[in-house]
Amino acid sequence: MKEILALNAFDRRAGAALGGPLAHQIERRCRAFGAASVLFYDRPLEFVRAAGCWLYDRDGVAHLDAYNNVPSVGHCHPRVVAAATRQLAALNIHNRYLHEGTLAFAEALLATLPAPLRNVTFTCTGSESNDLALRLAAQFTGARGVIVTAAAYHGNTALATEVSPSAYRRGGPPPHVRVIAAPRSTGGSQPSDDVAARFAAEVAGAIDALQGDGHGFSALLFDSIFSSDGVFAEPAGFLAPAVALARRAGGLVIADEVQPGFGRTGTALWGFQRHGIAPDIVTMGKPMGNGYPLAAVVTRPEILDAFCENVGYFNTFGGSAVAAAVGHAVLEVIAQEGLLANAAVVGAHLKRGLEALATRHAAIAEVRGVGLYLGVELRAPASQDGAQFTSAVINALRERQVLIGAAGARGNVLKLRPPLCLSLAEADLLLASLDTVLASLQVGP
Amino acid sequence: MKEILALNAFDRRAGAALGGPLAHQIERRCRAFGAASVLFYDRPLEFVRAAGCWLYDRDGVAHLDAYNNVPSVGHCHPRVVAAATRQLAALNIHNRYLHEGTLAFAEALLATLPAPLRNVTFTCTGSESNDLALRLAAQFTGARGVIVTAAAYHGNTALATEVSPSAYRRGGPPPHVRVIAAPRSTGGSQPSDDVAARFAAEVAGAIDALQGDGHGFSALLFDSIFSSDGVFAEPAGFLAPAVALARRAGGLVIADEVQPGFGRTGTALWGFQRHGIAPDIVTMGKPMGNGYPLAAVVTRPEILDAFCENVGYFNTFGGSAVAAAVGHAVLEVIAQEGLLANAAVVGAHLKRGLEALATRHAAIAEVRGVGLYLGVELRAPASQDGAQFTSAVINALRERQVLIGAAGARGNVLKLRPPLCLSLAEADLLLASLDTVLASLQVGP
Repeated sequence: MKEILALNAFDRRAGAALGGPLAHQIERRCRAFGAASVLFYDRPLEFVRAAGCWLYDRDGVAHLDAYNNVPSVGHCHPRVVAAATRQLAALNIHNRYLHEGTLAFAEALLATLPAPLRNVTFTCTGSESNDLALRLAAQFTGARGVIVTAAAYHGNTALATEVSPSAYRRGGPPPHVRVIAAPRSTGGSQPSDDVAARFAAEVAGAIDALQGDGHGFSALLFDSIFSSDGVFAEPAGFLAPAVALARRAGGLVIADEVQPGFGRTGTALWGFQRHGIAPDIVTMGKPMGNGYPLAAVVTRPEILDAFCENVGYFNTFGGSAVAAAVGHAVLEVIAQEGLLANAAVVGAHLKRGLEALATRHAAIAEVRGVGLYLGVELRAPASQDGAQFTSAVINALRERQVLIGAAGARGNVLKLRPPLCLSLAEADLLLASLDTVLASLQVGP
Repeated sequence: MKEILALNAFDRRAGAALGGPLAHQIERRCRAFGAASVLFYDRPLEFVRAAGCWLYDRDGVAHLDAYNNVPSVGHCHPRVVAAATRQLAALNIHNRYLHEGTLAFAEALLATLPAPLRNVTFTCTGSESNDLALRLAAQFTGARGVIVTAAAYHGNTALATEVSPSAYRRGGPPPHVRVIAAPRSTGGSQPSDDVAARFAAEVAGAIDALQGDGHGFSALLFDSIFSSDGVFAEPAGFLAPAVALARRAGGLVIADEVQPGFGRTGTALWGFQRHGIAPDIVTMGKPMGNGYPLAAVVTRPEILDAFCENVGYFNTFGGSAVAAAVGHAVLEVIAQEGLLANAAVVGAHLKRGLEALATRHAAIAEVRGVGLYLGVELRAPASQDGAQFTSAVINALRERQVLIGAAGARGNVLKLRPPLCLSLAEADLLLASLDTVLASLQVGP
């Protein structure tokens, strides 16, 4: 998995070769952050301001952001900034006093979720949320076994890393974590429920193995758009048989909505809703505060009750007055600016454009995804490694001031997930830039 | 340990008895947050604004805050709010692009720590920091055994909870976690190094036990003011023999500075400095962003290197442009407003005042602590439980608009840790209020 983590990462040994102030800044950075420092791009970027889908460097050069899904309602959205500013100046306190703002936000958030999910626990990060969700499931089921997909990423705590194969640099999962194949469609020639049946069979096999090994089955944990696996979204509904099966086997279903949540799929606020399923636990994070550290776990009361009988949980910054003001503003902006519809319309336009590029560029093997979370699987020229070729495309786009990322178990999938306010014109700019880059990097079909 | 967690907690069964809008708000809160909701006080409070050491309710009634150590440079400090506001409006992006502000803050923070600690990893919470620190130690030493004190609290992730005896509601620590007695001084009649020798002996015994049980010795983890144990600070230096011993045994020393850090002890920026020791890993959180979720792990490069060879670590919100702007502003305010000196002067004044109260109130068994982290151990009247009596004191102070908390394995220690900008007059108000409350609750000596 080392390749994925290194994908689109700056090689620090190349720092000195860049020369000048940039080399000096990179040297300082490597000294301060050490081995944990990962910089994007062969020529790292520094930005000083941002708005909408645009990031600006020191020289005022604008870069189209088709990568960052945290500033999901647009960089530095004025309503979100105003809400944060107002609350920061008035009161920024934890959730052990009453606060109408925190309560109103909790109620607004719960109203977006299926009725049985009535309790919310605020945290600061998706990692904290998944860490807590796994413990809720273990406590409730009395079992430890967890099922995740092959290149899943669910966070950076000890417990969340165990269920994040894409973060392993050496070795495999611990024995109580079963890794199954991501639900990849075999394409148009198959019946539409084929991926559903295959994924359910993978889950069934993993449950059998966990039970056979004595770990028991605690939870099926997935990101319903399978982002780090390489983006697998179609057909909507394919998760339903696996979810039904997991529940019949006594496990809990945890929908990790850190990536697909808050309208990204353009279909519904939550990614799992596209699949017609009702999870036992929903975790959320990244776009929830548009950059302010804010995340949550939502579950049924009996699941939270069982946990709290055994261990206390308090999160100092979780659900603070400021976090709530920011989170509420984000929910309101999504509704008032019609960002769900925009993600659907602009996402469909972008996907059609990518499919059109695929007819002219042999490098595009497949276009996947939904709404404004799209994956473009690349086919490298014969002489090149897939991850290296993908990195070359990403770096060439960066030189044309367009920012995207990579995903997939082999690092050969372009990952497109711009702010949800992306316009049709901005989508066209992205398409034109990719067209130019692909033309420059290899011969057409 | 259930008593501690419940201490000063509102009993939700009492909600309806309060009547009116407050009862309705509490009912909504219990419905939304469920079993994980912990409200302070028999009559919960709601605040709407805050400044300096004061919190204001809806009616404009001011409450003196001698409890909250997160808004450490003062609630809603204008310079910190301005830094956050400016950066929120300009750019709020993760740390995989270069950002001079993040780099400058990292360098300023590292400059406050002993030279071997040259790498910083930003996280969002103290829990994330301690979770990472434990994994750094395990990776570097190849061992799992951790030593913590009896009522320690080090965070809310799965891994951090394992080393937080004060968070267990049922059962004890896992086998690789050894719990030792907190370093309580036996008082003035003993030689001043007695507590040091006893604590070192506790650590030695725990190391032997961990090694004997095959867990090996990974880390000695402590909060150098032993806050949740009940505040044990004197004599300065008592940690040195235990630290030397731990290091000789091949373990790492982790100083959890979430409570004593950022000047709280009034002696130095970091609590461990009072003890003349140099930890291998320092974790920090709570006051670092004055309420903005911001935390960090600082360590030696070889320790971070060993970890990063095996697993990747990235924290989406950690060290963002906004987090860095806020954190840097907090460091600057501490220096420019002389908050270290203020914590020393006002803390000493407050401690002397508490000692004077102890001569007049039999309820005060011992006054402990340093700077603006003070513990007042109570002695309940014969008919009362210690934790109940302590809770009565805290609630009576709340009715006089003074906010403090509780600590200690038996929940019988008043915990005083106001913002570092507390004035002498505010300290006197706190003392006068406590005097009145103690006089009203029991007969004097």
